[in-house]
Amino acid sequence: MAEVKPILVVGSVALDTVETPAESTSEVLGGAASYFCLSASLFAPVRLVAVVGEDFPGEHRELLKSKGIDLNGLQVRPGRTFRWFARYSGARLEDRLTLDTQLGVFADFHPTLPHRYQDSKLVFLANIQPELQLEVLSQARHAEFIACDTMKLWLDTALPALERLFRRVHCVLMNDEEAVQFTGRRFLPAAARAILDYGPRAVIIKRGENGSLLFTGDRVFSAPALPLEAVKDPTGAGDAFAGGFLGSISRAGTVDESALRRAVLYGSVLGSLAVQDFSVSRVAGAGMDDVESRFDRLVDMISLAPSGQKH
Amino acid sequence: MAEVKPILVVGSVALDTVETPAESTSEVLGGAASYFCLSASLFAPVRLVAVVGEDFPGEHRELLKSKGIDLNGLQVRPGRTFRWFARYSGARLEDRLTLDTQLGVFADFHPTLPHRYQDSKLVFLANIQPELQLEVLSQARHAEFIACDTMKLWLDTALPALERLFRRVHCVLMNDEEAVQFTGRRFLPAAARAILDYGPRAVIIKRGENGSLLFTGDRVFSAPALPLEAVKDPTGAGDAFAGGFLGSISRAGTVDESALRRAVLYGSVLGSLAVQDFSVSRVAGAGMDDVESRFDRLVDMISLAPSGQKH
Repeated sequence: MAEVKPILVVGSVALDTVETPAESTSEVLGGAASYFCLSASLFAPVRLVAVVGEDFPGEHRELLKSKGIDLNGLQVRPGRTFRWFARYSGARLEDRLTLDTQLGVFADFHPTLPHRYQDSKLVFLANIQPELQLEVLSQARHAEFIACDTMKLWLDTALPALERLFRRVHCVLMNDEEAVQFTGRRFLPAAARAILDYGPRAVIIKRGENGSLLFTGDRVFSAPALPLEAVKDPTGAGDAFAGGFLGSISRAGTVDESALRRAVLYGSVLGSLAVQDFSVSRVAGAGMDDVESRFDRLVDMISLAPSGQKH
Repeated sequence: MAEVKPILVVGSVALDTVETPAESTSEVLGGAASYFCLSASLFAPVRLVAVVGEDFPGEHRELLKSKGIDLNGLQVRPGRTFRWFARYSGARLEDRLTLDTQLGVFADFHPTLPHRYQDSKLVFLANIQPELQLEVLSQARHAEFIACDTMKLWLDTALPALERLFRRVHCVLMNDEEAVQFTGRRFLPAAARAILDYGPRAVIIKRGENGSLLFTGDRVFSAPALPLEAVKDPTGAGDAFAGGFLGSISRAGTVDESALRRAVLYGSVLGSLAVQDFSVSRVAGAGMDDVESRFDRLVDMISLAPSGQKH
C-alpha cells in the first residue's frame, strides 16, 4: 500500500454572505482553501496555509481541526477576516454577481510554510494572486506534484506571473471560459494543448454541470458531472473538486494516467457535494461511504458494459 | 449475428445556403433527413421518406443512391425544393441566425410510406411538424423502435401534438435548451425524468461540444463529444448524431442498455464528422474505418483502465 502523503494547500479562508433566489446565508465559512481542505481531508492529511483575522469564529477553526486538518500554517492577524458577498440570480456559477469583496487581513497576506510543512510532496495552490502562489513554490522545495487553480481576475491583471506559474506546476485546473480567455483558442482541445505547452503534464478544464476534461500528453479523459436534481449554492464547487482530485492522488500514491482519471472522478464527486448546500456544510457532513457511492455512480455513467447495478 | 434491420427516416431534404465567419456555401445538400441518411447508411440499409421539388439536383439524388439509400419514398413535386439560409457568427449552434426559410414543396408535404417500407422495424422521425411525425406512426405499424427529434419551433407552436408524439415513441432526442424549455425544469436530470414520464424508454439530451446524456429508467450514460480543434459548420450535427445512433442499433440488433450506450457513442462520432465540413461532405466521404477509429477514441475518453493505446 502506498504511503498517504499529506497535502499542502495555500489559499483563502473567508466568511461568505451568499444570496440565492431561494435562500440566503450570512458570514458562513467559505474561501477556496476551506472547501479544498474539507474535501481533501476525506482522503489524506491536509496542511493549511492561509490567514484569518482575530474575528474568525472559533467554531470554524474547530470544524477544520475536527477533520484533522493541520492549522499550524493558519496565520491569525489583527484585523478582519476576508469577507465575500455574492448573489446568484440562478443556480449556476454564470449567474453569479459578486457584490463586495472585503480583503481585510488577506490584503497583506504572504504565505509562510511552517518548518514541518516544508517536506510536502503534494501541493495545491488555490486561487490567489499568482505572485503568492509562486512564493509558496520557493518554499515547498520537495514538492513532487503541484496543482494550481486561478481565476479571471488574474488573467486580466497578472498574466506574466501566471505564465511563470504554469511553467512550474504539474497540473493546471481552470474553467472553460478561463482556458479560452487565457489561450485565445475558442475550442477546449486547442486551449488545453496551449496550456500543456507551458510544461504541465495535466490540464483539467472544469465545465460545471457539463463535467470536466483531463488533458494529458495527447490523451483526453471526459469526466461527467453527477446529475443533480437541484443545486443550492454553486460556490466552492471547483475548490471541492480540487480537494477530491488531490485527495484521491494522495491515497493512490501515484500520478499515472489511471490514477489521474480516477482522481478527476473523485473531484467530480466532491464538486457535486459542495453545491448541494450552502458553505461547506454538505462536504463537511460527508463520509467516505457517500463519496464512494457517488464515485460508483459516475463510473456507471461512463461504463459501456453495465454491471446491472442500479442507482 | 443479428439481422441488420432497415431504418426508415422521415424528414427534410433541403438546399442550404450557409455563411460562416471563414467561408460560405450556397445551395448545398442539407436537411435533417439527408444528414441522417448518409450517417445511418454507413451501418444499415436506409429508407427515405421526404419531398423535393423538380429542381432538386440530380447529383444529390445520385449521392444518396450511391450509398444504397432507398429513394422509393422520396416524392418529387412540382415546385421548388425546401431552401434554408443561415449565418453563423461563430462556430457553435448558438451562434446561428436563420436568415430565411423557403418551404417550397415542403409546405404541402404529407409523408406516405411506400408499401415495401411498411414493415420497417426501426424508425427515425427527424425534426418536422409533430403532426407529420404522427402521420408516419399510423403507417409504420410494425415499428419496434421509434426515435424522434424536434426543435424549438414545435415547442412554441405545436406542444399538444408533441406530447402525443412523446407518448408513442421509444426514444426522444432533444438538445439541452429544448429539454429545459419543454419541461420547465432547469436541470437536465429533472428534465429528462419529466420526458421519460411520457413513456419513452430512453431520452438523449444533446449538448453539442459538451457531449450528450442518455437517460434510461434510473440510469444515465455520459457520452463525450470528440474534442475537435475546429468546427467548420455545425449544421446537421444532431441529425448525423441520430443517424449514427440508429445505425448502430440496427447493426447491434438489440436495444439493451449496453447497445444504447454504444449507439450514443456512434452518434457522437457522426456528429463530429458532420461539423468538420460544409453540407454532408465529411459524412458522405467517411468510411467505417474513420468511424471505428473515432469510436475507439471516444471509448478511450471514458476508460478508467487505459489500454496504453494512444491517439
